[in-house]
Amino acid sequence: MANMIAQTPEPPYYAVIFTSLRTEGDRGYGSTAERMIELASQQPGFLGVESARTMDGLGITVSYWASEDAIAGWKAHSEHKLAQETGQRVWYADYFLRIARVERDYGKRSV
Amino acid sequence: MANMIAQTPEPPYYAVIFTSLRTEGDRGYGSTAERMIELASQQPGFLGVESARTMDGLGITVSYWASEDAIAGWKAHSEHKLAQETGQRVWYADYFLRIARVERDYGKRSV
Repeated sequence: MANMIAQTPEPPYYAVIFTSLRTEGDRGYGSTAERMIELASQQPGFLGVESARTMDGLGITVSYWASEDAIAGWKAHSEHKLAQETGQRVWYADYFLRIARVERDYGKRSV
Repeated sequence: MANMIAQTPEPPYYAVIFTSLRTEGDRGYGSTAERMIELASQQPGFLGVESARTMDGLGITVSYWASEDAIAGWKAHSEHKLAQETGQRVWYADYFLRIARVERDYGKRSV
């Protein structure tokens, strides 16, 4: 469920902030994006994901992970690697990833 | 410009990941959100901001800062404090903030 606030544990944990600008047209993007969220959710150390995209094409997907090793494992996953390649070649005009260590958090999350 | 990939400097720097679920209706939200991005951009240590919201109400705004002090200064800004209070009372069904230290980044950003 990438359209909810992620139920992450107490910090510290890691966030991968993936920002992208889409090219025109779907060209297989939607189904792959859904599949990648499903697949990421099954990886060791996955803690949650949040995703949103504006109408003019800016997308932000933040995935949360228990460790840097968990992030490296997901980056190296064969099906994910293929999606990364297609993303760079077809789906994204621009993209940027930031790997960050979450040090504190607060707010109000209904379960 | 919150609808572009932020032109942040070399890490380390800080990210505030603000995730929210909106209540129904605008009730002054849109204009205040725009004003807060304008005001944040003028604060010391501000590095950039990216924002997106899905049609079903999940919003992700990531702002980037030079230091934890810069984040604390923005949190304590009087006009921002008023917006935070209204957000909790009126605009947000749920919200969550994560303060994270960006350790590395990569990608392709057109200027």
